[in-house]
Amino acid sequence: MAKVNDNYLKLPGSYLFSTIGKKVSAFQGANPDKQIIRLGIGDVTQPLAPAIIEAMHSAVDEMGQADTFRGYAPDLGYDFLRNAIVENDYKARGCDIAADEIFVSDGAKCDSSNIQEIFSLDNKIAVCDPVYPVYVDSNVMAGRTGTYDAKSETWSDVIYMPCLADNNFAPELPKETPDLIYLCFPNNPTGSTITKAQLQEWVDYANKVGSVIIYDAAYEAYISESDVPHTIYECEGAKTCAIELKSFSKNAGFTGVRLGYTVIPKELKCNGTALNPLWARRHGTKYNGVPYIVQRAGEAVYSGAGKEQLAKQVAYYMNNAKTIKEGLASAGYTVSGGVNAPYIWLKTPDNMTSWEFFDFLLEKANVVGTPGSGFGPSGEGYFRLTAFGTYENTLAAIERIKAL
Amino acid sequence: MAKVNDNYLKLPGSYLFSTIGKKVSAFQGANPDKQIIRLGIGDVTQPLAPAIIEAMHSAVDEMGQADTFRGYAPDLGYDFLRNAIVENDYKARGCDIAADEIFVSDGAKCDSSNIQEIFSLDNKIAVCDPVYPVYVDSNVMAGRTGTYDAKSETWSDVIYMPCLADNNFAPELPKETPDLIYLCFPNNPTGSTITKAQLQEWVDYANKVGSVIIYDAAYEAYISESDVPHTIYECEGAKTCAIELKSFSKNAGFTGVRLGYTVIPKELKCNGTALNPLWARRHGTKYNGVPYIVQRAGEAVYSGAGKEQLAKQVAYYMNNAKTIKEGLASAGYTVSGGVNAPYIWLKTPDNMTSWEFFDFLLEKANVVGTPGSGFGPSGEGYFRLTAFGTYENTLAAIERIKAL
Repeated sequence: MAKVNDNYLKLPGSYLFSTIGKKVSAFQGANPDKQIIRLGIGDVTQPLAPAIIEAMHSAVDEMGQADTFRGYAPDLGYDFLRNAIVENDYKARGCDIAADEIFVSDGAKCDSSNIQEIFSLDNKIAVCDPVYPVYVDSNVMAGRTGTYDAKSETWSDVIYMPCLADNNFAPELPKETPDLIYLCFPNNPTGSTITKAQLQEWVDYANKVGSVIIYDAAYEAYISESDVPHTIYECEGAKTCAIELKSFSKNAGFTGVRLGYTVIPKELKCNGTALNPLWARRHGTKYNGVPYIVQRAGEAVYSGAGKEQLAKQVAYYMNNAKTIKEGLASAGYTVSGGVNAPYIWLKTPDNMTSWEFFDFLLEKANVVGTPGSGFGPSGEGYFRLTAFGTYENTLAAIERIKAL
Repeated sequence: MAKVNDNYLKLPGSYLFSTIGKKVSAFQGANPDKQIIRLGIGDVTQPLAPAIIEAMHSAVDEMGQADTFRGYAPDLGYDFLRNAIVENDYKARGCDIAADEIFVSDGAKCDSSNIQEIFSLDNKIAVCDPVYPVYVDSNVMAGRTGTYDAKSETWSDVIYMPCLADNNFAPELPKETPDLIYLCFPNNPTGSTITKAQLQEWVDYANKVGSVIIYDAAYEAYISESDVPHTIYECEGAKTCAIELKSFSKNAGFTGVRLGYTVIPKELKCNGTALNPLWARRHGTKYNGVPYIVQRAGEAVYSGAGKEQLAKQVAYYMNNAKTIKEGLASAGYTVSGGVNAPYIWLKTPDNMTSWEFFDFLLEKANVVGTPGSGFGPSGEGYFRLTAFGTYENTLAAIERIKAL
């Protein structure tokens, strides 16, 4: 008799963004005349840059001709893309990462949820609180998190590292030693960052206690301050303790194109076992590579024209971030983030809970954001807005909020 | 201290096709003047059909304009594609499958390896022997297969169902009751099929004992005989016991485009728990959808022009299959498959092992095939050739083999 994976049944409710989607649909259904502005889910709105469109058309044409048609891609990615990544994202920053340490994938969400599979089920994870829900939920599904306490909204076998205003939304080293440490900087959802010196402390700690850091650098393109690291491999010793996840979703608008990559240095070992070949084995068995057309699109991100066009796109979104942050601050809100990240994190007014403020904002201003409590208990009383809307919508949303 | 998933360390050697790739590279390196013909890995060679190319160009253009740009796709696939699948692959065959029972994905390899995640780790799997290695290896990685015996090349906790000449390469109902049954028809690697009446026996058996059938129909487009089922849902009662996996790789040449789907009927339950929402939860948490451009390409597969062009492509490959089968038979080989499937399964001559014949064929004829033993112990003494080459290469390969 077939039995299901009981761990799935422990998951409380549905995935955060599904819940938001349902609430928004219900509101729109009941109020068909309202113009809802969505600054909730981190989805981009600007079209793909011309250099990327051109590369994709060219790749489509290749797929239509016998002599240039491409079948199965190499499991780990085409060399043209892996080499472009090495040159631009690592060598250019003084980091010695080789092409065979780059694993091209269909995005950082998949990688961040799949990476736990190469680790033992009795490893204990540490996460920031609030946190991107996928890190925790993927570990719940694997059976690594113990039991759920509905009152505190926490798992018995997860180490939570609170990120609150009094620590500037940066986690402190945990008291209990974790096996796997998930870090994301610039941070989703708080928009906070840590300096290179602070990240070096984490690297030193992980090397000392034998933890592996899973470093999500999906928002790296939004860094504007000079002392914020663009990759964890800027820190000394990171190659023996850290896996890095990168995404093309936010720097190049690839949310609907699907491209990302994971870096696992060959030096990174657990008890003598190198992780790079384990992840290669997982890719080879449970994955079949990224479409050729998408990999060519990724290559164009690193072309001269691509870089120039995408710098403008990032600047466009960061201007939105500034608009949100300054607008809310002038309306008396307590806000952070938005300087090195496309996320603005705000304290809900009048002691509203996060979901109360969500409903309030949806009903009164027809603006959709993301309740901070959806990212963990320490997110309660906070709210996330994203800079990925159009400028016009962003401005209109802030005007509506200011008018409340 | 982080620990690795020890199950990975139990996997013997590397993935079959990686091993073949390395052997071929080594041979080509040592013999740069030899023209190697690859009829090994099931990769297609014909370019994408014009209707698909047109749809992709159009979708690329949409992604380049603000008013038609698409960000995150719906987790489970765009309605336009799910509806086209329902209409063409199910309703047209009299099967009542709804759009919300279709889960669009980046291919059947990923789905067939990921699907085990929604089941309990103490479920026991049954597989045909020989078998597509991914079904077994993904269960090994999850820790569901017990210990490996190198001598017999079998796992202690896997039920093997031998498919040999004396049962016409069709499995018999297992003596021990499995929880999960992997079936693939038309079969990879043997190219065999079973009739609708035979498949009905499996469905009745699964419903009786409470097993779930994971039915891989990736090669459905190659069926030429009328009593061979195109989908397991042609069988009565399949919706309460079967998951179906489909691929666009072989019917539309999408090996480098990446598109497939899984069907989980809402009636399918294990001990009262419906599997459809579990798989939806997995998609929502561990996956982020198929690129918009690829889903539009998939839609074009079902257009009038697409269907016409792809029927010719399938006929082209099936003519290759006929060429291989008749050529080898005339040379005295014992061959099967190739009638409802793009695979030809041949008995190795002179009691050679599968790998001996692989080396022999590579060295003497410079032709690459796949050793049957790579698919399981009952594949020993057999060899797989695929019909996915060009006609010219296929003909040349057969001439070379005949001349040995």
